[in-house]
Amino acid sequence: MKKTLLFTLMILIMQLTYAQTKKITGFYKDNIAGEFTTESSFDSNISTDSIGKLDKKLSDEPHSLGSPADKEKTQYILSLFRRWGWDADIETFYVLFPTPKTRLLEMTSPVKYKAVLKEPALKEDATSGQKGQLPTYNAYSADGDVTAQLVYVNYGLPEDYEVLDRMGISVKGKIVIARYGRSWRGIKPKVAQEHGAVGCLIYSDPEDDGYFQGDIYPKGSYRNEYGVQRGSVVDMSGYYPGDPLTPGIGATKDAKRLNRNEAPSLLKIPVLPISYHDAAPLLKALDGPVVPVSWHGGLPFAYHFGPGKATVHLKLEFNWDLVPCYDVIAKIEGAKYPDEWVLRGNHEDAWVNGAGDPISGQATLLEEARSIGLMLKKGWRPDRTIIYCAWDGEEPGLLGSTEWVEEHLKELQEKAVVYINTDANGRGFLFAQGSPTLETLVDEISKQVVDPQTGVSVFDRRRAHDAINARTSKQKEEILNRKKMEMGALGSGSDYSSFVQHAGIPSLNLGYGGEDGSGAYHSIYDSYDLYTRFIDPGFVYCATLAKTIGHAVLRMAGADILPFDYSNLYKTASDYSEQVMNLLESSRENTMVENMLINTGSYAAGDDPTKGYIEPKVKKEVPFLDFAPLQNALQKLNGSVDNLERQFKDNLESGNAPAGFNRLLYRGEQELLAGDGLPRRPWYRNILYAPGYYTGYGVKTLPGIREAIEQRNWDEAQQQIKVDAEVLEKLAGYLRQQAVSSR
Amino acid sequence: MKKTLLFTLMILIMQLTYAQTKKITGFYKDNIAGEFTTESSFDSNISTDSIGKLDKKLSDEPHSLGSPADKEKTQYILSLFRRWGWDADIETFYVLFPTPKTRLLEMTSPVKYKAVLKEPALKEDATSGQKGQLPTYNAYSADGDVTAQLVYVNYGLPEDYEVLDRMGISVKGKIVIARYGRSWRGIKPKVAQEHGAVGCLIYSDPEDDGYFQGDIYPKGSYRNEYGVQRGSVVDMSGYYPGDPLTPGIGATKDAKRLNRNEAPSLLKIPVLPISYHDAAPLLKALDGPVVPVSWHGGLPFAYHFGPGKATVHLKLEFNWDLVPCYDVIAKIEGAKYPDEWVLRGNHEDAWVNGAGDPISGQATLLEEARSIGLMLKKGWRPDRTIIYCAWDGEEPGLLGSTEWVEEHLKELQEKAVVYINTDANGRGFLFAQGSPTLETLVDEISKQVVDPQTGVSVFDRRRAHDAINARTSKQKEEILNRKKMEMGALGSGSDYSSFVQHAGIPSLNLGYGGEDGSGAYHSIYDSYDLYTRFIDPGFVYCATLAKTIGHAVLRMAGADILPFDYSNLYKTASDYSEQVMNLLESSRENTMVENMLINTGSYAAGDDPTKGYIEPKVKKEVPFLDFAPLQNALQKLNGSVDNLERQFKDNLESGNAPAGFNRLLYRGEQELLAGDGLPRRPWYRNILYAPGYYTGYGVKTLPGIREAIEQRNWDEAQQQIKVDAEVLEKLAGYLRQQAVSSR
Repeated sequence: MKKTLLFTLMILIMQLTYAQTKKITGFYKDNIAGEFTTESSFDSNISTDSIGKLDKKLSDEPHSLGSPADKEKTQYILSLFRRWGWDADIETFYVLFPTPKTRLLEMTSPVKYKAVLKEPALKEDATSGQKGQLPTYNAYSADGDVTAQLVYVNYGLPEDYEVLDRMGISVKGKIVIARYGRSWRGIKPKVAQEHGAVGCLIYSDPEDDGYFQGDIYPKGSYRNEYGVQRGSVVDMSGYYPGDPLTPGIGATKDAKRLNRNEAPSLLKIPVLPISYHDAAPLLKALDGPVVPVSWHGGLPFAYHFGPGKATVHLKLEFNWDLVPCYDVIAKIEGAKYPDEWVLRGNHEDAWVNGAGDPISGQATLLEEARSIGLMLKKGWRPDRTIIYCAWDGEEPGLLGSTEWVEEHLKELQEKAVVYINTDANGRGFLFAQGSPTLETLVDEISKQVVDPQTGVSVFDRRRAHDAINARTSKQKEEILNRKKMEMGALGSGSDYSSFVQHAGIPSLNLGYGGEDGSGAYHSIYDSYDLYTRFIDPGFVYCATLAKTIGHAVLRMAGADILPFDYSNLYKTASDYSEQVMNLLESSRENTMVENMLINTGSYAAGDDPTKGYIEPKVKKEVPFLDFAPLQNALQKLNGSVDNLERQFKDNLESGNAPAGFNRLLYRGEQELLAGDGLPRRPWYRNILYAPGYYTGYGVKTLPGIREAIEQRNWDEAQQQIKVDAEVLEKLAGYLRQQAVSSR
Repeated sequence: MKKTLLFTLMILIMQLTYAQTKKITGFYKDNIAGEFTTESSFDSNISTDSIGKLDKKLSDEPHSLGSPADKEKTQYILSLFRRWGWDADIETFYVLFPTPKTRLLEMTSPVKYKAVLKEPALKEDATSGQKGQLPTYNAYSADGDVTAQLVYVNYGLPEDYEVLDRMGISVKGKIVIARYGRSWRGIKPKVAQEHGAVGCLIYSDPEDDGYFQGDIYPKGSYRNEYGVQRGSVVDMSGYYPGDPLTPGIGATKDAKRLNRNEAPSLLKIPVLPISYHDAAPLLKALDGPVVPVSWHGGLPFAYHFGPGKATVHLKLEFNWDLVPCYDVIAKIEGAKYPDEWVLRGNHEDAWVNGAGDPISGQATLLEEARSIGLMLKKGWRPDRTIIYCAWDGEEPGLLGSTEWVEEHLKELQEKAVVYINTDANGRGFLFAQGSPTLETLVDEISKQVVDPQTGVSVFDRRRAHDAINARTSKQKEEILNRKKMEMGALGSGSDYSSFVQHAGIPSLNLGYGGEDGSGAYHSIYDSYDLYTRFIDPGFVYCATLAKTIGHAVLRMAGADILPFDYSNLYKTASDYSEQVMNLLESSRENTMVENMLINTGSYAAGDDPTKGYIEPKVKKEVPFLDFAPLQNALQKLNGSVDNLERQFKDNLESGNAPAGFNRLLYRGEQELLAGDGLPRRPWYRNILYAPGYYTGYGVKTLPGIREAIEQRNWDEAQQQIKVDAEVLEKLAGYLRQQAVSSR
């Protein structure tokens, strides 16, 4: 590229960026200035000091679900909402929540070792020695008392078991030890159980979560040798989130409940998370072959697969209690459209103190609510109803939000315009996941909110960061030329799940991070002290998040025409469709080549004969599938969307949208729900995205088709192509028909 | 691919492979059977038992250059050759070889630590406690006594200093600590010195060379915490290998020598290699920012850059002695062409006992010599003269081989047909580097020598191993369809260097490995005990190497028409030419994009402002260069080669090659020498390959052009394009003219 061309391009980019800082879709021309004024007024109330005080107050003691402190916190949050002029109440559910009664882990051979299972208090961390901390455990582990040989399974993913298969190592009847990372934690015991293991340990390896990342706490923020990641292992992605005993319905006092032994999402084997201090002697005692380098973690000895002399005894017993789950729900009724709801939520329950997770997000949410309260007092009223939710019981399995959505499903599907979620927040770069129809909204806001450290827009900062850290020049250039804030799809891991995947409510999950690395996650060290030293000193990114979310809430509450971007939905679905077609092709190619390697004796000739490798088995060839239904449906959707876009533009320009046009827009995502849901997990109904069956938090797009291909279930893949095509045709029909009728 | 097609392909591959097992290029039809008989006879003499005994005997005590034991070993080798009927002698040179007088390393702040600098004897290793071991040191370090702050520089490569620049960290006046790996060791102090460091420590990090690789010695074969890699740091790649005081001439007793302070290849700063036991307290004491994850090694704490409180004192003094260097040279005169020499060598000097490096290769060489001796006794005689060389002084800087080549340069350029090198050998897969003209020879042999573990050809085994371990299906498929044994280019690191890069003698470097991982390299643990437990138990791969090399020697010694493949030389040169053109293009693209990132403020916006990053500087744009001379020269070469290939075939079929045709073939590589050599290092004259100025062992192809582009020296790059084009035209002319005249 010539120098002159380069500069022309730069100027063009700068001009575009400037033009976009003034862009706001969804408001009639005459109302744009007013919306900016409203948002400025909102911003002027946001105070880092106020957020900091809220964070300190709400994280001042351990407050896990069901604890007295948790109840107190929800009462306090309720009182705040009410003080600020919101119509607030607590809605209570009753959910299964096990807490530890017995936790014993010991190595019985080749040497004795009794695991510590305890994070020590630190003088540098004021709350780390408090009473009321939940011990280190994985919620919804089974009770169990097992003694067995130990096998190291790396991250415990399905592909790790393929490596074990090649080595001829079975985990049947064994206890596995897996390291945290690369999947949601609940996947590890689930896959271990599928392979016949009788118990599972999950530990934080210092390569992934410890001194490899930086100085350990309290010198730095990274996980120290005793730090343990608590967390749920209920099989949310395989069945459903929420209370394990009340799938699909609200866990009200009198709800019909499953017996505990009928609940499909509960594991059958005991699982315990441990520190690298406790893992080290166990791993060191393993014999058997040395692992491949990619399996080696950060502990200072050679890792081995086992099994062998290393034998461990794991005994776990839990109190299987039904506990109250307090959702704080606060409303401001809309002046124009009271039956159109803009929802926004963040959980408040923590594994321990949770100054970062979830209180940084909860304090941000409350600061937004305080600002809106101040605006109310000055006489402002939103056009649509705004509902703020402080969820309880997120940590054990999105309990509070899921039960609430299930309980209010019908009304939500009538009224909910959008659900906007946050969770732990920190210093760094804007990240955004959500329904593709909301990309324009997020894009425009990202170009208007200013990064507190650099003074550029949070869009520009994110783009600059991505560009300078991309691997290749080609990627750097592409990122630098990026015109829009890119949004990922929603998987699981926070309270948006039931909204988008079960109810079909357009949803967003936003936050800042990337310069806030720490190892405090789900430990007693997720404290105000650590947060203010390392995660977001001065709470400036919480304030930035409050503005980001506040603008989104206010725009959705005040838009003349809701800024849903269906052309981006079409584009996204179309991309996903291409991806699954490519996945089938690469699966065919991989199978063909792998079979050729086996058939030509390449494994027999190429393997190290001293290692006892087992040759992989020839796989059935991958058939060709008929993607035409999907392609035809997308073609129809494209037509409908083009038509809708024209109407959108016309309505916006005329300043006179027909009644029902907004309802058409916000209820479109519900058309993405399939009646029968996804195969074997009917609770998940959105055909466009779901948490991966074998990733947990990680999203799978067009999951019905994609996972069938990944699992080599070709008949199901073909059947899911048809299902997804029908759903997309349904959406295309909905958008066309409704749009016409709403003229 | 359809199933039937797949099987057709498999059968085709098998047929081709079978056909090729019988292929032997360079012999008249009537002589092929005889050659196979000769090779069978050679093979039948090869005994693993005999190799094992030789390995044990020659590694039974430390025998570094200049030691009494080294002299004894060369005398013993001489006696063996003579016993086996070879005409053998010792040729002695006198070379500069420093050994340690004082070695002191201590940390003086923030805590005191005195480095151990000693590998302990182990009861599991019979020779590890012997007298006469050279202490751990880097040969040709400067004398020095420095105290300075310590800075961690990762692998100490030029790109690592770019990371330091971004952090605003200078090593000027500091002592650097670099980890072994990713470059030849001598590069690390050289680059440190260029950046103003006053001292350099090099340590073996357990991630690269220790428990990350497997169990440590004596439990396994990997480097234990006290293990140290000795080695030379003389600037071979920047100037020349061989005696630092006699560049370009043989270091005979009366040779004209440089003063030590004039010798350009000697470092100016002190350098010391240390174990990870000694490195750990130093690295742990470093402060300053935490390093990026890719800089983190395998020690169990967070790595920091420094500089800060950590201060070390390094004192080194050496005995700068001139020592005798004994090359054993053994000949069998050729019956038909006594003035055409087939050379084969391996060094015999070791840093300590060297059962693997070099004795596994030396014992193999001697076993070949014994077998040939037995054949001689039965009346066999080679057509060409065979010369076997046991080099002394390889470890300090390829001294024995370089001095011998320099001393006999003229005669070698007249008579040397090929030089075949080996060094340490082990269990696994054939690797081959060499002159592209020799690829056919190696390819044919690789399909005829049988792998001792699997019974397939060593070609098939290598291909199978590469295929099953390739990353993508596409790569796997490509490898599986590979028809020829691929050879890499020769860089440096063993005794072929002066043959190919200074004298233009076609050269090969062959060996087996890949299933023989260990951390014994250049330590006292490179012992018979370790070798026979872990590297090549039973010496079966040494026997396989003896056959591989033996066949190469016998074919080159007996060929009617020497099997040089100039079409592969053309193809290789043409590939290199495309690579340097692509390098220029990617350099242009990278520069353009990096400048765009800087000019758009992306670093300012995207960097973490708390880290104090320094923004990179805008670079000059990359100009377009005129590659036409190179392309035209390659076109001419292509024509000459086509013509030559026709003659080769005709001559082979007619069974009557003209006199001089073989001489034409074997002297062609000399046409690749440029009169002035490479820029700033005239000793390196081969324009097609050289060790990289900043990689050391790692080869650079078309180095004149490539390194000028890498160093952004555009004028030099353009000038080197012309030089290389002229040289290639010279070769094209030589091949055409000579071929015609030899008709």
